[in-house]
Amino acid sequence: MDFDAFDRVRAVRFVHAEPPFALELLDQRLLPHTIQYVRCTSVPEVAQAIANLTVRGAPAIGIAAAYGVVLSALSHALRPIADAHAAIRADCATLNAARPTAVNLAWAITRMLNCLGAEPTDSADLGHVLIPRLLAEAQAIHSEDLAANRKMGVLGADLILPGSGVLTHCNTGSLATAGFGTALGVVRAGVALKRVERVYASETRPWLQGARLTAWELLQDGIQAQLIADGAGAHLMAKGLVQWLIVGADRICANGDTANKIGTLAHACAAKQFGVKVMVVAPSSTFDPHTAHGGLIHIEERDPKELLEYSGVRVAAQGVQAFNPVFDVTPHQLIDAIVSEQGVWTPGR
Amino acid sequence: MDFDAFDRVRAVRFVHAEPPFALELLDQRLLPHTIQYVRCTSVPEVAQAIANLTVRGAPAIGIAAAYGVVLSALSHALRPIADAHAAIRADCATLNAARPTAVNLAWAITRMLNCLGAEPTDSADLGHVLIPRLLAEAQAIHSEDLAANRKMGVLGADLILPGSGVLTHCNTGSLATAGFGTALGVVRAGVALKRVERVYASETRPWLQGARLTAWELLQDGIQAQLIADGAGAHLMAKGLVQWLIVGADRICANGDTANKIGTLAHACAAKQFGVKVMVVAPSSTFDPHTAHGGLIHIEERDPKELLEYSGVRVAAQGVQAFNPVFDVTPHQLIDAIVSEQGVWTPGR
Repeated sequence: MDFDAFDRVRAVRFVHAEPPFALELLDQRLLPHTIQYVRCTSVPEVAQAIANLTVRGAPAIGIAAAYGVVLSALSHALRPIADAHAAIRADCATLNAARPTAVNLAWAITRMLNCLGAEPTDSADLGHVLIPRLLAEAQAIHSEDLAANRKMGVLGADLILPGSGVLTHCNTGSLATAGFGTALGVVRAGVALKRVERVYASETRPWLQGARLTAWELLQDGIQAQLIADGAGAHLMAKGLVQWLIVGADRICANGDTANKIGTLAHACAAKQFGVKVMVVAPSSTFDPHTAHGGLIHIEERDPKELLEYSGVRVAAQGVQAFNPVFDVTPHQLIDAIVSEQGVWTPGR
Repeated sequence: MDFDAFDRVRAVRFVHAEPPFALELLDQRLLPHTIQYVRCTSVPEVAQAIANLTVRGAPAIGIAAAYGVVLSALSHALRPIADAHAAIRADCATLNAARPTAVNLAWAITRMLNCLGAEPTDSADLGHVLIPRLLAEAQAIHSEDLAANRKMGVLGADLILPGSGVLTHCNTGSLATAGFGTALGVVRAGVALKRVERVYASETRPWLQGARLTAWELLQDGIQAQLIADGAGAHLMAKGLVQWLIVGADRICANGDTANKIGTLAHACAAKQFGVKVMVVAPSSTFDPHTAHGGLIHIEERDPKELLEYSGVRVAAQGVQAFNPVFDVTPHQLIDAIVSEQGVWTPGR
């Protein structure tokens, strides 16, 4: 399939044709109303952009951090090699601390540190050997993610019968990855391969990633999704409009239990009730064999304000309290297929 | 139990101690930020207040319309009795057309027309007999609704084991009725009778009745609910925080299938998955024996704008489409108890 025709948005890009070299990040805090890239030329700028959600989505964060290491090496190019090595390592620690919960961030930094090597070599190597090598590694992380997403897209779409309707939740698209997306990559491939006829995106309270990001991203590629309230998913399934629920994952346990954005479990329960199939799409780096089952996953709770107001507009009365867990765990019994770049797993069977 | 201590908010009140007589409606468009009663002294004002959602909730609309008929009779008091009768009937038609979908509106108007009687009598009767009789009928509709709600509250609370957590959806409280509420009446009674320890209210997109109305209303009575995202209900059930889902109804079919605010079905599917019980609470006027099952209920779709914006702030990009069904149908198999003022029905057993 012609992937590019269905995948025009890029959240992360590295400008290296000529100096000043820069990491450009599509500012996801301003979407969909303003399309603006933030230009980062230093490690503190990259770390800040990760921390303040200019860039979001675990794979996209990992890629941004990898390029941050390249910027680090460039900024220390004129220092003695031993000093430069130490400074790059310190910058890696800074980047790693920007959002400690994102698994891919640590994974990408580890790859860059392995590429840097344990021991400083000749000073002349920094500019001519080490920096190109680090740039190549960051570009590899970047392009491998895109390739994995495209592979998952085709593997997942292959499970969908022609004429199907699909429901996706949160944003798992080009905005969250190097491109194409995980769950949204399957949706894209499904549309391109003419398996998917109807695309529904739930708005995903409290952050509204579905309304702000997913609907916009699909629109850029000419795919018209129907935005729905999170509570309307079950109704669509009852009416036979949806055949597959397709979601991403933040962590997949050894038994297949999957943590994902709050609201995923509700959709999966409705899917069970109405015979709709459930597909989880995530790269193999999301698999966590050390966590036996979902009951062991700590569910992050965030500021109740996210529910009490929207975009600075107070909704609930003063004094009202809110409970704001931002992930939930879908038990593997409710999952029909887990798709990674390595293949399709059916933990519920 | 001391009902009044748990029920301080009144959506509808009629001032008849001295002229000018007036229907006062708590403006629900402005809640929770502004607490302001709209004063209606004429039928067009009452009809407008019903149409523009100043007053909402099927029972509250019926009560407001009944007082509208009293205002009609007062305004025609100086006309010949035959003319007055005809004018009151015309006003009834105006009120009835204000929101044609609300069942209780037509039901209340029918009661007032029966009270008016088919034939005009002596002109002198209008002021001394007919107006007091219409006022008494409107007050009866008003007080019967409150009594029914209190009865349902106790019947429903009786089903709940001490130490329970409950989840409710939309607003079914004093704001939607004469007072106490239907589903929210059970929640109130459950708290008062020390059966309910935890109250969760889902925000209820797109209109946010849970966030704007239910959380505020409970706060006025000293009941601290936790507001949650609609998608978080399943997570709460999975974690054992909720033992009963308690909701109202817009229509209950002959077989027990129940139409209610969008998002109810999703909560009910999750309840089934995690062994949480489901209670529907509605007065007997909500029962529709002429509709055999839920598949026959027409589901209203409303303006997509309600989803594309959040509380007046544009969320989705221009060009994004939305699908906005505002009710869903919960099959009777998912319902453990339907509570009316006449008793408890268990259609799913």
